[in-house]
Amino acid sequence: MANLGFVGLGVMGSRMVKRLLDAGHTVTGYNRTPSKAQQLLDAGMRWGDTPRAVAEAADVTLSMVTNTAALKAVTEGPDGLLAGLGSGKIYVDMSTVSPAASRDLAARVSAKGAYMLDAPVSGSVITLEEGKLSIMVGGDAAAFEKIKPILQNIGPKVTHVGGNGLAVSMKIATNLSLAVQMLAFSEGVLLAEKSGIQREIAVEVLLNSVIASPMVKYRGPFVLNMPDEAWFNVNMMQKDMNLALEMGHELDVPLPTAAVTNELLTAARGMGLAEQDFAILFEVLARMSGVSQ
Amino acid sequence: MANLGFVGLGVMGSRMVKRLLDAGHTVTGYNRTPSKAQQLLDAGMRWGDTPRAVAEAADVTLSMVTNTAALKAVTEGPDGLLAGLGSGKIYVDMSTVSPAASRDLAARVSAKGAYMLDAPVSGSVITLEEGKLSIMVGGDAAAFEKIKPILQNIGPKVTHVGGNGLAVSMKIATNLSLAVQMLAFSEGVLLAEKSGIQREIAVEVLLNSVIASPMVKYRGPFVLNMPDEAWFNVNMMQKDMNLALEMGHELDVPLPTAAVTNELLTAARGMGLAEQDFAILFEVLARMSGVSQ
Amino acid sequence: MANLGFVGLGVMGSRMVKRLLDAGHTVTGYNRTPSKAQQLLDAGMRWGDTPRAVAEAADVTLSMVTNTAALKAVTEGPDGLLAGLGSGKIYVDMSTVSPAASRDLAARVSAKGAYMLDAPVSGSVITLEEGKLSIMVGGDAAAFEKIKPILQNIGPKVTHVGGNGLAVSMKIATNLSLAVQMLAFSEGVLLAEKSGIQREIAVEVLLNSVIASPMVKYRGPFVLNMPDEAWFNVNMMQKDMNLALEMGHELDVPLPTAAVTNELLTAARGMGLAEQDFAILFEVLARMSGVSQ
Amino acid sequence: MANLGFVGLGVMGSRMVKRLLDAGHTVTGYNRTPSKAQQLLDAGMRWGDTPRAVAEAADVTLSMVTNTAALKAVTEGPDGLLAGLGSGKIYVDMSTVSPAASRDLAARVSAKGAYMLDAPVSGSVITLEEGKLSIMVGGDAAAFEKIKPILQNIGPKVTHVGGNGLAVSMKIATNLSLAVQMLAFSEGVLLAEKSGIQREIAVEVLLNSVIASPMVKYRGPFVLNMPDEAWFNVNMMQKDMNLALEMGHELDVPLPTAAVTNELLTAARGMGLAEQDFAILFEVLARMSGVSQ
Repeated sequence: MANLGFVGLGVMGSRMVKRLLDAGHTVTGYNRTPSKAQQLLDAGMRWGDTPRAVAEAADVTLSMVTNTAALKAVTEGPDGLLAGLGSGKIYVDMSTVSPAASRDLAARVSAKGAYMLDAPVSGSVITLEEGKLSIMVGGDAAAFEKIKPILQNIGPKVTHVGGNGLAVSMKIATNLSLAVQMLAFSEGVLLAEKSGIQREIAVEVLLNSVIASPMVKYRGPFVLNMPDEAWFNVNMMQKDMNLALEMGHELDVPLPTAAVTNELLTAARGMGLAEQDFAILFEVLARMSGVSQ
Repeated sequence: MANLGFVGLGVMGSRMVKRLLDAGHTVTGYNRTPSKAQQLLDAGMRWGDTPRAVAEAADVTLSMVTNTAALKAVTEGPDGLLAGLGSGKIYVDMSTVSPAASRDLAARVSAKGAYMLDAPVSGSVITLEEGKLSIMVGGDAAAFEKIKPILQNIGPKVTHVGGNGLAVSMKIATNLSLAVQMLAFSEGVLLAEKSGIQREIAVEVLLNSVIASPMVKYRGPFVLNMPDEAWFNVNMMQKDMNLALEMGHELDVPLPTAAVTNELLTAARGMGLAEQDFAILFEVLARMSGVSQ
Repeated sequence: MANLGFVGLGVMGSRMVKRLLDAGHTVTGYNRTPSKAQQLLDAGMRWGDTPRAVAEAADVTLSMVTNTAALKAVTEGPDGLLAGLGSGKIYVDMSTVSPAASRDLAARVSAKGAYMLDAPVSGSVITLEEGKLSIMVGGDAAAFEKIKPILQNIGPKVTHVGGNGLAVSMKIATNLSLAVQMLAFSEGVLLAEKSGIQREIAVEVLLNSVIASPMVKYRGPFVLNMPDEAWFNVNMMQKDMNLALEMGHELDVPLPTAAVTNELLTAARGMGLAEQDFAILFEVLARMSGVSQ
Repeated sequence: MANLGFVGLGVMGSRMVKRLLDAGHTVTGYNRTPSKAQQLLDAGMRWGDTPRAVAEAADVTLSMVTNTAALKAVTEGPDGLLAGLGSGKIYVDMSTVSPAASRDLAARVSAKGAYMLDAPVSGSVITLEEGKLSIMVGGDAAAFEKIKPILQNIGPKVTHVGGNGLAVSMKIATNLSLAVQMLAFSEGVLLAEKSGIQREIAVEVLLNSVIASPMVKYRGPFVLNMPDEAWFNVNMMQKDMNLALEMGHELDVPLPTAAVTNELLTAARGMGLAEQDFAILFEVLARMSGVSQ
């Protein structure tokens, strides 16, 4: 069993640590807000006072934070994760940040004789809890082989996609389909409903059809009852779509469905629905169709 | 066990009859080209000389033909299915035809004291063989209850969506997502590939992600190797998209992703790819991206 | 000066006849509702009791009716225009009907030894009154040369585009830009307005820029004050867009801007704005942007 | 007559100076490459050794440079334009830069007791030479009134759109229609051509129709013969489109036609046509339609 560190014990991070502890690993954890860590400490996690302390204590340190700014906050400075890394250590960042930011950080890790891998995940809390999380990994192949069994304790599907930053690119390429599939699904539901089929039945049929991806299965029922709290809100979804479209413009890949869907996300914001789960695309289309809720 | 009839023993129909025979039903079958029926006759199917003879011999007659014109050919005239229907009999058409044509036929069946149900399927030959076919049914609720167990021998998910013609409407509302999901998937693959990820790896990651609907799982690998024979070609897919868009215009439902995707199907035709499986949308986008195959 | 006939004295037709009378031609006119013709009779127009009577009295008969059905009503039957045509006569239909319907009628005219030309116009009542109407003509080249000077009395730009039906095709190809330009203009106005520029000023600047087509100049001010009566309403505009998209699918021409714009016209209908001038696309987009009127 | 300065004597700037000299103004000019100025010096322009010298010599200094970076190069540093500005002087930047960069510079000008106005132009060299250039101005209203007559010597339409940076915003809002109108025009030409109308005739008809904006009139003939040198190439057009789409996402304005058109500009890049005038959108669509050139 490995000697691990983990920085960022939020909704996703804490559940990952739980799975790593259950698998028998030693885990030293750090979170900006220590109170959130109590349950994990009760389950056997050790406490690190700073990201640096975590990295010093562990052979392999993982992190899972919100965005590029949060990643900087835990990696830089005298107490930062970078300061604790040394020759032969491995650092795995599971956050979704920009490919460029990830590559920059990897270069600094490399300068310290350590290895960095970017390992963003595809799926939500539920996918994680069901043990179905898919993890993409970018970076050195030998380092990947070492940490692969550890990541498999978090999710069964672990795929090495290429060099540093490419896993983040792969994730963005994946995520554009989330919003597009949700909007196409909504088009189908409204078409059925206006034909005279009850919305509940239309949803049931679609969820049992060949278009029912895990994402559609999770979010499809939201067109009947929107969740109180967004899993992934319009603003977050649009940030990923904008990243995809920027990549498309740089790499000369036209993204027609992503581009059109992104404008409907903008409409969601214009209609005051920015904080809702992006399944609210259904509501945007319903208003355009004159369907009152 | 029921006394059934089946008209149309093509790729889908013949496999359905096989399942019905395996379930213990008596089946009288008819096909325009009798030679195709030999294997089923060997398996115990009885032969009906005309669609009318099939309907006369059976309590419940099913049909599965290519399109509205083929449906007319087997239902009308002195040897047609309609002529063999009488009071209390049930007729289930599983073809995908226009909602209006289905409703017209239902009215004529009703005039003979019989019941008609439209029961198009969602899924392909593979879904059928895996026993995962989803069947939507439109028409009288009591008649539906009677034939539900029979349809469950064909596919496990049988859903009554409403009155006559509505199952066909539901199918069209479902199918628009096929092309949209395929195009969004292609956008993701090309984005990943031009970022520096091997196409094989990009496909593998996407097929293990939350966007992997059964349709994406079937067709995703086609971007690596297009099949020799189309499962559902560009022309067929575009016919369904045009039906969806016509419904959208009549019912005032904007279909932004369907509309944009349909224009790429048109581009596929313009590029001479009309007879290819609609997964060729990937190739259309690749050409627009300057990616040579 | 020529001996002319004119069938259909509506908003456009009556103004055309006025211009032909002013140019010194003899005109025999017919309208389903005779009362509308009084002003033209006062101005010297002769009355024909039926379309047939008009065609019999004239060497060149023109017609301008609403749609394909109205064209059938005035051309067919014992009192119809066709019955009055004979060897050497010329018939010019200026209505916008389907290319196929126009070609069919031309064949029947030809069978009588006469010539038919389709000559739809680009522009509205205002363009006509300003003497700036552009007229496209399809049909026999020699017949075109004969009637060209007559059409130039209606509008200065008369262009022979090819054989029968092609002028109608050309008109549909022209009209798709109407809705697209209006929507792009609306996008610009709302972008300026939300940046902090007064809507009136944004409109003024755009109307003086290189994007100000005659259509934009006519309709641009409508985003400040919608007209009481539609010049060309959403339903009419969408009919032309649907014709264009059907042609695109038949001829394998992708129409990305037309397809997307058409879905916003559908949204206008969904929002209950079908009878408004299609400049209401601005309002549709404003609602999607959360801009209250 | 006024005592003017002008920094940036490129294709547009030199022609502007010529008009100002013709109007009787005194002009001190500066260009990074002095050789380009000879013709203007022969026409009476005075030479300033640095941007600073120009600003010191003049009451009103104008600039016209390529982009934000070039603007920094001529305004900053000991020899920069800013160093030459003092109380009561006016600085008018006619370049197209980002609204934020323009507002930042305006604040620094204001700190020196001077006034800055952003005054980008709508139109090309030809519009300028024809004396039809439209100029939008952002900034202080009183300063605007002072320089309005000077700008009218460059182009007849001078409009104050609001505070600093808003004229640049207005220009971006205008420019999105350039690409959209060009693509819609191309859709119409190809639809006509595949219907059987000669391309030359389709273009002629469209250029005489209500959709013929000045932009369409300039660029329409390019679908018959692309120019040897781009007036405004795909890369430049896409930069403006990206700016528009960014503004749309920030300000919650959906831009459906701009978004779709931008993906076709991306396709132009993918097809290796990035350096062509953006009228090459026609060629992109032609390839998608299977039309060989």
